[in-house]
Amino acid sequence: MAGAAAPVRVAVAGATGYAGAWCVALLSRHPGVQLVQAASRSHAGSTHQAVYPASECQLVLLPEVDPSGCDVVVSALPPGEAARLAPLWLNAGATVIDISADFRLRDPAMYLKWYGEEHPNPNLLLRSVLAMPELDPKAIEGSELLALPGCFSTAALLGCGPALREHLVGPEILVDAKTGVSGAGRQAGQGFLLSEVDESTRAYGMDGHRHQPEMVQAMSDLFGEGCTVTFVPHLVPMVRGIVATCYLRLRPGVDLAAVKRAYQSHYGDRPFIRFSEDPAASKLVSGTNLCYLSLHRQGDHLIVCAVIDNLGRGASSQAVQLLNQRFGFNPMAGLELSQRWP
Amino acid sequence: MAGAAAPVRVAVAGATGYAGAWCVALLSRHPGVQLVQAASRSHAGSTHQAVYPASECQLVLLPEVDPSGCDVVVSALPPGEAARLAPLWLNAGATVIDISADFRLRDPAMYLKWYGEEHPNPNLLLRSVLAMPELDPKAIEGSELLALPGCFSTAALLGCGPALREHLVGPEILVDAKTGVSGAGRQAGQGFLLSEVDESTRAYGMDGHRHQPEMVQAMSDLFGEGCTVTFVPHLVPMVRGIVATCYLRLRPGVDLAAVKRAYQSHYGDRPFIRFSEDPAASKLVSGTNLCYLSLHRQGDHLIVCAVIDNLGRGASSQAVQLLNQRFGFNPMAGLELSQRWP
Amino acid sequence: MAGAAAPVRVAVAGATGYAGAWCVALLSRHPGVQLVQAASRSHAGSTHQAVYPASECQLVLLPEVDPSGCDVVVSALPPGEAARLAPLWLNAGATVIDISADFRLRDPAMYLKWYGEEHPNPNLLLRSVLAMPELDPKAIEGSELLALPGCFSTAALLGCGPALREHLVGPEILVDAKTGVSGAGRQAGQGFLLSEVDESTRAYGMDGHRHQPEMVQAMSDLFGEGCTVTFVPHLVPMVRGIVATCYLRLRPGVDLAAVKRAYQSHYGDRPFIRFSEDPAASKLVSGTNLCYLSLHRQGDHLIVCAVIDNLGRGASSQAVQLLNQRFGFNPMAGLELSQRWP
Amino acid sequence: MAGAAAPVRVAVAGATGYAGAWCVALLSRHPGVQLVQAASRSHAGSTHQAVYPASECQLVLLPEVDPSGCDVVVSALPPGEAARLAPLWLNAGATVIDISADFRLRDPAMYLKWYGEEHPNPNLLLRSVLAMPELDPKAIEGSELLALPGCFSTAALLGCGPALREHLVGPEILVDAKTGVSGAGRQAGQGFLLSEVDESTRAYGMDGHRHQPEMVQAMSDLFGEGCTVTFVPHLVPMVRGIVATCYLRLRPGVDLAAVKRAYQSHYGDRPFIRFSEDPAASKLVSGTNLCYLSLHRQGDHLIVCAVIDNLGRGASSQAVQLLNQRFGFNPMAGLELSQRWP
Repeated sequence: MAGAAAPVRVAVAGATGYAGAWCVALLSRHPGVQLVQAASRSHAGSTHQAVYPASECQLVLLPEVDPSGCDVVVSALPPGEAARLAPLWLNAGATVIDISADFRLRDPAMYLKWYGEEHPNPNLLLRSVLAMPELDPKAIEGSELLALPGCFSTAALLGCGPALREHLVGPEILVDAKTGVSGAGRQAGQGFLLSEVDESTRAYGMDGHRHQPEMVQAMSDLFGEGCTVTFVPHLVPMVRGIVATCYLRLRPGVDLAAVKRAYQSHYGDRPFIRFSEDPAASKLVSGTNLCYLSLHRQGDHLIVCAVIDNLGRGASSQAVQLLNQRFGFNPMAGLELSQRWP
Repeated sequence: MAGAAAPVRVAVAGATGYAGAWCVALLSRHPGVQLVQAASRSHAGSTHQAVYPASECQLVLLPEVDPSGCDVVVSALPPGEAARLAPLWLNAGATVIDISADFRLRDPAMYLKWYGEEHPNPNLLLRSVLAMPELDPKAIEGSELLALPGCFSTAALLGCGPALREHLVGPEILVDAKTGVSGAGRQAGQGFLLSEVDESTRAYGMDGHRHQPEMVQAMSDLFGEGCTVTFVPHLVPMVRGIVATCYLRLRPGVDLAAVKRAYQSHYGDRPFIRFSEDPAASKLVSGTNLCYLSLHRQGDHLIVCAVIDNLGRGASSQAVQLLNQRFGFNPMAGLELSQRWP
Repeated sequence: MAGAAAPVRVAVAGATGYAGAWCVALLSRHPGVQLVQAASRSHAGSTHQAVYPASECQLVLLPEVDPSGCDVVVSALPPGEAARLAPLWLNAGATVIDISADFRLRDPAMYLKWYGEEHPNPNLLLRSVLAMPELDPKAIEGSELLALPGCFSTAALLGCGPALREHLVGPEILVDAKTGVSGAGRQAGQGFLLSEVDESTRAYGMDGHRHQPEMVQAMSDLFGEGCTVTFVPHLVPMVRGIVATCYLRLRPGVDLAAVKRAYQSHYGDRPFIRFSEDPAASKLVSGTNLCYLSLHRQGDHLIVCAVIDNLGRGASSQAVQLLNQRFGFNPMAGLELSQRWP
Repeated sequence: MAGAAAPVRVAVAGATGYAGAWCVALLSRHPGVQLVQAASRSHAGSTHQAVYPASECQLVLLPEVDPSGCDVVVSALPPGEAARLAPLWLNAGATVIDISADFRLRDPAMYLKWYGEEHPNPNLLLRSVLAMPELDPKAIEGSELLALPGCFSTAALLGCGPALREHLVGPEILVDAKTGVSGAGRQAGQGFLLSEVDESTRAYGMDGHRHQPEMVQAMSDLFGEGCTVTFVPHLVPMVRGIVATCYLRLRPGVDLAAVKRAYQSHYGDRPFIRFSEDPAASKLVSGTNLCYLSLHRQGDHLIVCAVIDNLGRGASSQAVQLLNQRFGFNPMAGLELSQRWP
């Protein structure tokens, strides 16, 4: 469908955070979409361009999305907000694509454990789909509530998915990730001033980062039985980009060539997955929806480097990818490549 | 020992690389040392300050060190050079402290495998000591040929040493390290231009980095039996600093409190080792000989973050630390802290 | 003309420098252009993508452009190369758009003075046009040899042009410019390593930068009599971007409002010129052909901040802008905005 | 005096801002000083090290300085605070060295104009000295209230001082300055997040920066008659450092050699002033009290590049320099060089 048909009307909630603003930028250029609303409680009444001079979007920001006027709500709200608002959006007939963590965990008990409060609409957790557009495209068809994996999870799932599904490796996964500071958002505090973070790298979230349980859930699904995930993120002095270095244990008798064949078979024709011999530099994917993968072996470890733009494939452009997939657009619609080097 | 005694006369070979130049800077301020020679084939005839405007050293650079005029040669030469020159230095009676990789591996076969040529003086490999000033101080006493571990190895050994020696963990070690680009040296090429590496992170050395075999050797020594080391370094867009995130497997029944006690007992009084609750930012150690350690647990993984300055503790200031230890100086001599924030 | 007509066949000479590679990237996406050749002496035989993984261009690099197969040669060669090759290209009937400095100065004596050798084809200096697409669009029509102003000159001319032409200011111009390091090119040496230039700013070219005489020539043309230009460029630790802060002396009786009116009148409808109240951040134009201008007054100084991407408007995308203008394409063809923030 | 005498007891007010924290770091290592108090309203009750892990200072932060227990108050408070508190400090007999702008302007009307409120203690403006330790050392002797020039003013005054005093130039001065972002302080907001400012340069303060009137005052004093100062600061993506490019108009008949002689004669023996042929890179002075100067000519413009560390010579280490001068310490006391490259 789609194409010359009536454009899909999209509203962006949380349009002035980094992820929301990047959604606005991408959707403004999308040939099959009409961006009809952009909402931001903190900047309601201003135009989007007034808040982001780099934006071409002249929409006046609403305090809240009005779901009656749109087909899709792309939500980039802070934690807990979409969980409260999604019923309104869904009841009005809108499809919801949520960038936040509110609908990723299937088990309300896990939500309580990791987010420190009861989920306000736990029944929605059953209706939502943790979207993996290359690994589980069927699940996206017809779904009304699509949850994006977190930025780290996206990279790790793309990196480990085929090996797990094909049981080429065991169920113990270790992910050591490096991210640019834009992941902390535009409301970030003192700890993200250039003066504090430039020329410096540090690990954080040592006692458990919130992306860990969603990795466990999705990887266990892919593997078919329970996986354990050890996960440590690191902050590096750059704006965009994630390198997730994934360490898996090869099953006896599995060699790297077999692994490469399996990845080719899973991903070979997918437009946003690319393979490189050496690990890709994160700058290569900046501003794009691409994921570069490289496959390596040391001893009986399979090592996969998965490289994405945390705001692109890790958030906003993956939301557009899901929208394209859900509504039958060309996969590249609104996601034309614009890599820059240097 | 020393102190008010005659100063130790030191020559620096390879004085115009980053590590050599930082040795010159540190030794110039050392109260018990007289920096008598600085050598650099590429810049012989210039003063050190002419090559490094930040240097206070007015010595005219020699093409080669003359070992007859010094008590110690600190060598920061490119790979293979010290291996050829050390016999001259040693025969002249000088103590040699080598920052390169030439004397780290005990086994000539391993040297051949990793460095691609026969070691020119394999007998020296038996006389050399892979120095670990906090973990094996006795080995340094009286040694005439001290090899520094590589920058990554230094961080990993400090991070894993006590756990390995006390058998709190198993023999499988995984080290995921992040380094600033100064590790590539001042002769680095196009791939290290700011335009190429800024705003970008990437893994490298996937098929085996040369610091891996020295980690295996030293960790096996500490553990008392053979260890395996999986190692992946990453380049991050900063000048100085290494974060080595070390993943070890806790022995059954060992809890984090026991690990912390063991580390305190090994390192508690050592002036260059500091513990932090959260992982330290690498900027905290920039320009110093410090190593910050933090100890964490996820499942049955012990995770140790070891944070050093690759040119400081990972090279030049560790050379000064060894000189202090070898010649009985105050451990802090020439290594007074000068942390800066921001 | 153009549009559905046969595409214009373009060859890029010097396709593996930063400016050439950016030309390739832009022209590959240009709807009215067929990129038929990319040449690079140093990488002939490789594909463009093999040299620049971010490139979508699969053309095998030629050692030299073959002008018989193209309508336009866009040249991004090192100094002096285009001066030697342009006759071949022109004789074969190609239009030449040159990013280098070879055809900017009208006077062969000035070329000799600033470039240290006789111009190999001084007669071509009479046929070439120093292109200023907004300030002198007529000159571009029908020209067969278009020379781009240098990156600094482009910013300064856009910033000062209307004031000079309208005689709102006197003939003494002072330009203090700040540039990212990509301006030094991919062949840049040690002085542009991240380790050398990060966390550092410096002025250079104090005795006269080569963009100064072309500013004098073009500004004098705009003013109608001889101008003097004082010019100091500075290197700042970023990849792309130029901020040219231009200081002009207001004629008695001219106020800032009159100046703003004049700039609006010159530029108001030009798609690549934007006005901002406060000076724009250079990141705002990164990857684009935009020039942001802001107009200010202190005492009797008119201060104009002109902000461009040195590789975009300062080189490659301005070449595409000229191509569009020369061949009657839509001004935005191949230059669709892709601003990113952050 | 001083030396083996009783140490000077110093208190730092505003000890948890960047400038205050750097004062604490420097004074902690000063051989003639006892740092007896550090005050910070926002962090009272914590140790200094708890707020700045890089600090060696274990003092518990007071809410306010108690002037009865110290000989000197070094104040790094936000604007307006020192103006209110200085009478208490002075009445208790303490000497005050103020890094803020509260006592720089001699004329209360100018203070009102630029700071938007009446000065709370205008009579103190008559007792305060705008300190220029190399240019007017006499004024510092015996003064009880020393005001540091702003970071930009410090660079500009050092750069222009000798030329103005010797009337080698005219009274019209233009200063184009570039600063690292640490000048905005640790309380800086969204606009100074790494995500917002990395890879970007911008001018600001176009309608008049508060350092401009103090430049006018001090330069007019040096020149002996009224000067005009055009001043534009720029934010560049680095932590520390200022490059002030100063444009002056040479008097007829004055050549560059004469200017160089005058500068040598004024500064030749001063330990913190250095001359370089080419403009210095700002990294060269990072962490130090140095000012590098280079002198250039274009047409009848004298161009002086003055390069300092904004938090060092532009604030905290200049405060220590004044303390040394005022109390007769060795000029280098507490200010030993610790340049790093890279």
